[in-house]
Amino acid sequence: MYRMICALLLSAGIALVTGPKLIAYLKKLHFGQTIYELGPAHQKKQGTPVMGGLMMAAGIVVSSLAFHPRKWEGAWDFILPLLAVSLLSMAVGFADDWIKAVKKRHDGLSPWQKIAGQVLVAAAFSVYCYFNPAVGSRIRIPFFHAEWDLGIFYIPLMTLLTIFIVNSSNLQDGLDGLLGTVTAVSSSAWAMISLLILAVPSLGAVFGADGARVTGVFAMSMVGACLGFLRYNRYPAKTFMGDTGSMLLGGGTVAMAMLLRLPLLLLLTFFTPVMSSVSVILQRYYFKLTHGKRIFLMSPIHHHFEKKGYSETQIVSMYAGVTLVLSLIAVLSIL
Amino acid sequence: MYRMICALLLSAGIALVTGPKLIAYLKKLHFGQTIYELGPAHQKKQGTPVMGGLMMAAGIVVSSLAFHPRKWEGAWDFILPLLAVSLLSMAVGFADDWIKAVKKRHDGLSPWQKIAGQVLVAAAFSVYCYFNPAVGSRIRIPFFHAEWDLGIFYIPLMTLLTIFIVNSSNLQDGLDGLLGTVTAVSSSAWAMISLLILAVPSLGAVFGADGARVTGVFAMSMVGACLGFLRYNRYPAKTFMGDTGSMLLGGGTVAMAMLLRLPLLLLLTFFTPVMSSVSVILQRYYFKLTHGKRIFLMSPIHHHFEKKGYSETQIVSMYAGVTLVLSLIAVLSIL
Repeated sequence: MYRMICALLLSAGIALVTGPKLIAYLKKLHFGQTIYELGPAHQKKQGTPVMGGLMMAAGIVVSSLAFHPRKWEGAWDFILPLLAVSLLSMAVGFADDWIKAVKKRHDGLSPWQKIAGQVLVAAAFSVYCYFNPAVGSRIRIPFFHAEWDLGIFYIPLMTLLTIFIVNSSNLQDGLDGLLGTVTAVSSSAWAMISLLILAVPSLGAVFGADGARVTGVFAMSMVGACLGFLRYNRYPAKTFMGDTGSMLLGGGTVAMAMLLRLPLLLLLTFFTPVMSSVSVILQRYYFKLTHGKRIFLMSPIHHHFEKKGYSETQIVSMYAGVTLVLSLIAVLSIL
Repeated sequence: MYRMICALLLSAGIALVTGPKLIAYLKKLHFGQTIYELGPAHQKKQGTPVMGGLMMAAGIVVSSLAFHPRKWEGAWDFILPLLAVSLLSMAVGFADDWIKAVKKRHDGLSPWQKIAGQVLVAAAFSVYCYFNPAVGSRIRIPFFHAEWDLGIFYIPLMTLLTIFIVNSSNLQDGLDGLLGTVTAVSSSAWAMISLLILAVPSLGAVFGADGARVTGVFAMSMVGACLGFLRYNRYPAKTFMGDTGSMLLGGGTVAMAMLLRLPLLLLLTFFTPVMSSVSVILQRYYFKLTHGKRIFLMSPIHHHFEKKGYSETQIVSMYAGVTLVLSLIAVLSIL
């Protein structure tokens, strides 16, 4: 338990302490996000440095390793993939941010480059989970205390899921403090889920208490990193996490869920990012089908709410509330 | 577990549904909070109806009774005092709000009337806990897995604690969405603590799994009520909870903590309200000692932050982050 507490505090501390220096450094490099042209009235945000997500990466990596439970011999089988998926997902986003912000090329990575990077990471991780005896192809069905053996289909399905979650996280990152707040709450849920698995013998037998010990520390590092980052990202933001940060958080979240064999719970804990993706997809297909009509005033759906007259802070508060409700339900669902 | 989920959803639903009608009714009665004269630039808030806390009371009472675990024969020994402390604390606040807002008498209850009401409630509840065999005079020391038998001193100490917490809650309620957000997070922590006690046999043996079943449902009702209420209270607020709401939330929180024999954990989960009280006390004594100097630009401390240039939403975000960190630590501390 002390490891989880220390991971939380250290991670928040690292993000808080590295924040000002990182922001100054990013500004010095003339990093400024090129604001997406269709965004409603965000032009004032021009000049806010992106890639602030790096401070979260520092917090997560250092504190999840510093308080890593080394005694369990399979522990590295959990922490290394967690960090690998997070950091490699981040690397894709980082490349995109770097090209846009430093090289000043508006287009960033090509869609195919981005998707190729993501597929590689997602497929490798899914194969890894499939062959890891502590994970395997059997996922848990929340609420029903049942398992579902996906067999070899585990690999393509989980590859798609990983890509979907990382991109959902990326799409949700459009308002000050939004994704950071949502991820702080949802990661708290993953920490509580890990804790229950650790502390309740019957759950430990099903999910594996040792793995939960690792995900618990990792989840708490994520909570700390998000909260530390929010100090600089809440409205009005001094820095944005960028694709760097959003893909890091998406990668870390999906990796925890898959290692705990609870990928289906992402529909609850990560509902609002998933909804961001779904709103984009619905909007696009509806637009094509109807030759020009729209469901939402703008997608992802948080921009729809903005156009409806909600302020950024109201939308963040709404998303946080929804995430808290669904996260509590997610925690309860495993019992 | 299903009871807890249902309590959360029903309570949020009740607050959401009753909200608009309650607000319209309160406005019709010409309720408008008389803004505290020294508050920084809150004059625009004149005319926002107070006593919006009543929608939370409706949510908490209905859903904690609807999903009350009746099978355990001692269950009523837990739910009745929980509701009694919440509602009687609320009654004191309600009387104050009513006199100020409806009777338009600026002074409300006299300090002595207020404190007399609170002492009565607090003392009666402390005596009740002392004699309830499932509670008694032994409180738990978090982190140390130890107990501390306060003996007969339990009664005066817990009376003071109850009064202190209810008033802390009341003092913190000064910014849009502040106390509602903090209480939503801290009540989530009490729900998770109850859940652990329920699910982990060794904790159940120490704290009593049956009582935790009741506090779990109650805590989830509180989370739901706060989140539903925040829909109308987040910045810019359409209604304030008033003393009605803040004393309800303070009373409910302290009652849960005492029934679980974990009053010391209030220092973590309810840290920011406690800090509000402490800042007022420090300010007052420092002012007297130094004949006119101040520690804070203004107390309670959230007004200090406002004077320092933080916006309301920034302060809410900061308090929520601190509460989330300390709440996670509180949950972990009982293991």
